[in-house]
Amino acid sequence: MTRKRVTVVGAGRMGVIHARNVVVHPDLVLHCVADVRAEAAGAAAEPYGVSHTADIAAAIDDSAVDAVIIASSTDTHVDLIVRAARAGKGILCEKPIDLDLGRVDTCLAEVAKTDVPLQIGFNRRFDPNFAALRQRMRGGDIGTIELVKITSRDPHPPPLEYIAVSGGLFRDMMIHDFDMARWLLGDEPVSVHATASCLVDPAIAQAGDVDTAVVTMRTAKGVICTIENSRRAVYGYDQRIEVLGSQGMLQAGNPLPTTVTRSSADALSTDTLLDFFVERYQAAYRAELDHFARVLVGDTGPDASAQDGRCALVLAEAALSSLRSQKTVEVEW
Amino acid sequence: MTRKRVTVVGAGRMGVIHARNVVVHPDLVLHCVADVRAEAAGAAAEPYGVSHTADIAAAIDDSAVDAVIIASSTDTHVDLIVRAARAGKGILCEKPIDLDLGRVDTCLAEVAKTDVPLQIGFNRRFDPNFAALRQRMRGGDIGTIELVKITSRDPHPPPLEYIAVSGGLFRDMMIHDFDMARWLLGDEPVSVHATASCLVDPAIAQAGDVDTAVVTMRTAKGVICTIENSRRAVYGYDQRIEVLGSQGMLQAGNPLPTTVTRSSADALSTDTLLDFFVERYQAAYRAELDHFARVLVGDTGPDASAQDGRCALVLAEAALSSLRSQKTVEVEW
Amino acid sequence: MTRKRVTVVGAGRMGVIHARNVVVHPDLVLHCVADVRAEAAGAAAEPYGVSHTADIAAAIDDSAVDAVIIASSTDTHVDLIVRAARAGKGILCEKPIDLDLGRVDTCLAEVAKTDVPLQIGFNRRFDPNFAALRQRMRGGDIGTIELVKITSRDPHPPPLEYIAVSGGLFRDMMIHDFDMARWLLGDEPVSVHATASCLVDPAIAQAGDVDTAVVTMRTAKGVICTIENSRRAVYGYDQRIEVLGSQGMLQAGNPLPTTVTRSSADALSTDTLLDFFVERYQAAYRAELDHFARVLVGDTGPDASAQDGRCALVLAEAALSSLRSQKTVEVEW
Amino acid sequence: MTRKRVTVVGAGRMGVIHARNVVVHPDLVLHCVADVRAEAAGAAAEPYGVSHTADIAAAIDDSAVDAVIIASSTDTHVDLIVRAARAGKGILCEKPIDLDLGRVDTCLAEVAKTDVPLQIGFNRRFDPNFAALRQRMRGGDIGTIELVKITSRDPHPPPLEYIAVSGGLFRDMMIHDFDMARWLLGDEPVSVHATASCLVDPAIAQAGDVDTAVVTMRTAKGVICTIENSRRAVYGYDQRIEVLGSQGMLQAGNPLPTTVTRSSADALSTDTLLDFFVERYQAAYRAELDHFARVLVGDTGPDASAQDGRCALVLAEAALSSLRSQKTVEVEW
Repeated sequence: MTRKRVTVVGAGRMGVIHARNVVVHPDLVLHCVADVRAEAAGAAAEPYGVSHTADIAAAIDDSAVDAVIIASSTDTHVDLIVRAARAGKGILCEKPIDLDLGRVDTCLAEVAKTDVPLQIGFNRRFDPNFAALRQRMRGGDIGTIELVKITSRDPHPPPLEYIAVSGGLFRDMMIHDFDMARWLLGDEPVSVHATASCLVDPAIAQAGDVDTAVVTMRTAKGVICTIENSRRAVYGYDQRIEVLGSQGMLQAGNPLPTTVTRSSADALSTDTLLDFFVERYQAAYRAELDHFARVLVGDTGPDASAQDGRCALVLAEAALSSLRSQKTVEVEW
Repeated sequence: MTRKRVTVVGAGRMGVIHARNVVVHPDLVLHCVADVRAEAAGAAAEPYGVSHTADIAAAIDDSAVDAVIIASSTDTHVDLIVRAARAGKGILCEKPIDLDLGRVDTCLAEVAKTDVPLQIGFNRRFDPNFAALRQRMRGGDIGTIELVKITSRDPHPPPLEYIAVSGGLFRDMMIHDFDMARWLLGDEPVSVHATASCLVDPAIAQAGDVDTAVVTMRTAKGVICTIENSRRAVYGYDQRIEVLGSQGMLQAGNPLPTTVTRSSADALSTDTLLDFFVERYQAAYRAELDHFARVLVGDTGPDASAQDGRCALVLAEAALSSLRSQKTVEVEW
Repeated sequence: MTRKRVTVVGAGRMGVIHARNVVVHPDLVLHCVADVRAEAAGAAAEPYGVSHTADIAAAIDDSAVDAVIIASSTDTHVDLIVRAARAGKGILCEKPIDLDLGRVDTCLAEVAKTDVPLQIGFNRRFDPNFAALRQRMRGGDIGTIELVKITSRDPHPPPLEYIAVSGGLFRDMMIHDFDMARWLLGDEPVSVHATASCLVDPAIAQAGDVDTAVVTMRTAKGVICTIENSRRAVYGYDQRIEVLGSQGMLQAGNPLPTTVTRSSADALSTDTLLDFFVERYQAAYRAELDHFARVLVGDTGPDASAQDGRCALVLAEAALSSLRSQKTVEVEW
Repeated sequence: MTRKRVTVVGAGRMGVIHARNVVVHPDLVLHCVADVRAEAAGAAAEPYGVSHTADIAAAIDDSAVDAVIIASSTDTHVDLIVRAARAGKGILCEKPIDLDLGRVDTCLAEVAKTDVPLQIGFNRRFDPNFAALRQRMRGGDIGTIELVKITSRDPHPPPLEYIAVSGGLFRDMMIHDFDMARWLLGDEPVSVHATASCLVDPAIAQAGDVDTAVVTMRTAKGVICTIENSRRAVYGYDQRIEVLGSQGMLQAGNPLPTTVTRSSADALSTDTLLDFFVERYQAAYRAELDHFARVLVGDTGPDASAQDGRCALVLAEAALSSLRSQKTVEVEW
């Protein structure tokens, strides 16, 4: 089997993660790292001895390349997806596709004219814990599903300048959880209600955003799903899921750095949680790329699809609408 | 110190628990068990060699009695409270005071004309786990409180005939959690939103009730509190609380019957949860009675008070109103 | 059923525990507390309004008494057991029967001439966790038993004056574990090896004792059992058992004061262990007395028996012999 | 920095693990896989496109090679170590060096004539959990060390033909734990006692070996260390360490495949343990190789050294001697 050649666009934190995973993947070859900041591109490419460029358009069009991983800033996603699709490259794009639903729809329409696969970087679908939980839900381990509860807390808020361009907590942070909810429920939410506060840092409120939020959704069958987000958990990156069914409960908790416990005169204690997504979702990013590699050779379809990317944004919009109206909002798909 | 003489009104499950706890309490004496069903009263009184009666009015008025514990059906609470108050007896009454807020207010007005102490049976305030959690919250263990999450699931639904007269899930079951929320928050909720379904048994829906519900509340300071209830958890009585603060998280989990774990070829496993409230809150009922004994001698005031009983009902009403209107409802205290 | 009248001999810590448990037991009546220290006897009797005496012989011979609980110092046990047996009283005696095997044999021979039941206070047999573990072993939960590992650590050493008269770690502390080992194994150890050190306090070595010890035993079937003791565990009273079988493993761990966990920037932590035997074995002491009450009415035999008391001492002697000889010692029953 | 070229000798399970880890290590290059079974060598080399050979001597002498990893059968270790040392290659050799102490000494004398680094494959030193535990012991987290307890159970016994040539449980399996004990204690054991049985499979006894064993060791300072081994644990590869100190206890437990728990009407349950050493020590093997890579460039010395390999064998011999003599055996270093 010929190994597929991959170019990574965007040399930020996510781009660097993807580049390294491409290098060690047996079926992929890292071809180039592209970033408008030539220096960042060079730094990311250097350890692997591959080329780099600040000319992203050329990097995407390069006929030697089979696929691109788009890990640049959100506002560039739509243009790069369309360009890559027209160039016939397989695409793995970080979430969200865009912050504007109209632009997303236009983009997906363009992609639909081609036959390139487009996978959205909802990495948590590939977390071994969440994947095992879902498999057991689907396998009937707890009977009929009644409640899904998603807890998702960052260790600390992002920089304020990022908050300003992020699209806000619902579109930027909770979008992962909206996707997780849909992926687990297997039944679309029909109504959404949001409650939120700014409790972590008043500057976040000044930037027009919230930092603590609870969303409750309900599917057509009456299954209830709650999502809780906080921009701060001083004990580490807290990512848990609990599912209640007619025959029991499944919970996926946080893996810890080590299994060491200490018993002292003060307390029995363990490590705090893994620091953030780089550590927690290390295996997930590798599994995500592995899935993408299989997509590139036609073994399977994208997980998650462009449509999944759109749907998560629709739920984020509904949550924002509920927050403003103080009403339960019917989802318009 | 003279031991206080106590009559228990109502010889159902709660009455029996209270009677036994009175008997073993060093500062209390069980005087009589009263129930309109003479046989039930007799059965409850017999092991302790005390008198019993079907004449509840006489039992309350009995000048030998210092205090009454009201554990009869909800619709009798208001009348019995008023009678006991006028007779000058200390009162411990099971929740709820009544299902109708108007009747509650009338009742509390009558009690206010006397100086008898009235304690409402919100037993969970006395659970050692929840009490320790609250003490640590108040002690600053996790900084400023941002989120309170209460999970409360019964092992199985009550009989349908009970559902019909219970006042519904919010007034009957979640009322405990509304009290817990207020007790933990120390800051009144100003808005309430409810989502609910009937997933456990369609007969519950036919009886006009729900069996699975999520309520989200927000205080004036922006603290968010969620309550989740299900009428069924096949793995036992599931009662947990989680609190996120600026400096960390506190969680109170479920005690297990034993510490035994089994490692087999199939799984690592432990006991399921304690069966129901009798087992889980055994220590809480004793501590509740102990508090009431101290109230009777004037050492302290009721915990929870009649006002607390009223407030929990106000929140239940707000939740019902939200469920019907599909809106976030402002609480009218 | 007539309630049995019980006198407690010895008003130290154990006597006080037994006295209170007798008072609240429905089938027993506390008759008297006897102690050569009249003041201690009086203090223990006072809360329950029962008589007390410094004349132990008279207290035992008292015809109004059905049974005695012997919780006085070890050196008095043999004489009091014999007196009570001759007086026809049921006997619950704290461990050990005596520190001298010859005296134990003489005592048991005297008791054998009567038909009084003699139960030895191996309270841990009644711990709900260990009892559940044993029941599951016997029920075949883990197949054939191969290894039993007992960990038993006190929170802190006893006073040095107690060490001097205690008979040493093996006869005083590990004797509980020798009984537990026999009770779990259901197959007598045939060989014993001991290793020990004085690591906690050099004064213990000066008193001729050790404070840290590991004993390994082997049954005729080849099942191996290890017992580990330390006189100090700063995190609390540490009492655990692990059993490996052909089909899996059972473990009984330490119950914690509450289920509260705290997640902070430093650690995830829980309460430390319960302080010592009074707290840890509270339920066990009640269950032990309940068993004794059933023995008194002839429903069942003692658990543990006088013979069990003797056997534990035999193993302690074998361990001491091994420690001195540095050899594996064959047990002479 | 020039990448070091490594040849792996032995294409069995361990050889395959090492080969893959060399391939993905940034500072190492896989040069060749050598095995007397040409087919096995070819199969192991094929995925990485490197050469393979059945001529091990030539492979070791190859001037293009900087280092060799010896993962062939134990009886070949000494000759290959000596050859590689004389050829000036850095050496990572699987444990044990040899089953015969005399041969080990001769081998180490030969290696000492050269200046090549020789690292022994005691992989568990590199397990993140055990490494963290040791770091905290050394950092004073629990004060002075008093007791070390090592539990080490394989999921199932090896094939009988392997047992026959393995050197027996002490030299083959417990040798890892002897090394772990020395590494943790930092103070050499001076006495050793062993107890053992054949409980898993009578055929193991017929092959002259045991399958269940407990060893107790004591250091000059009186610190006690127990090691427990079983050839079978149906719930997975069970590897735990517990250390008691004057200020507390540290425990390193078993990592689980996922964090998923299931609560059903029967039990609360989690995954069983990781299957065996390939899964459990995956990270350890990578860290071990990473250390070896640093040894090759002179950044550090081997961990563990040839001397460590010898010392573990000395303890295994002492345990065997104790088992036969039924005495506590003084260690002759």
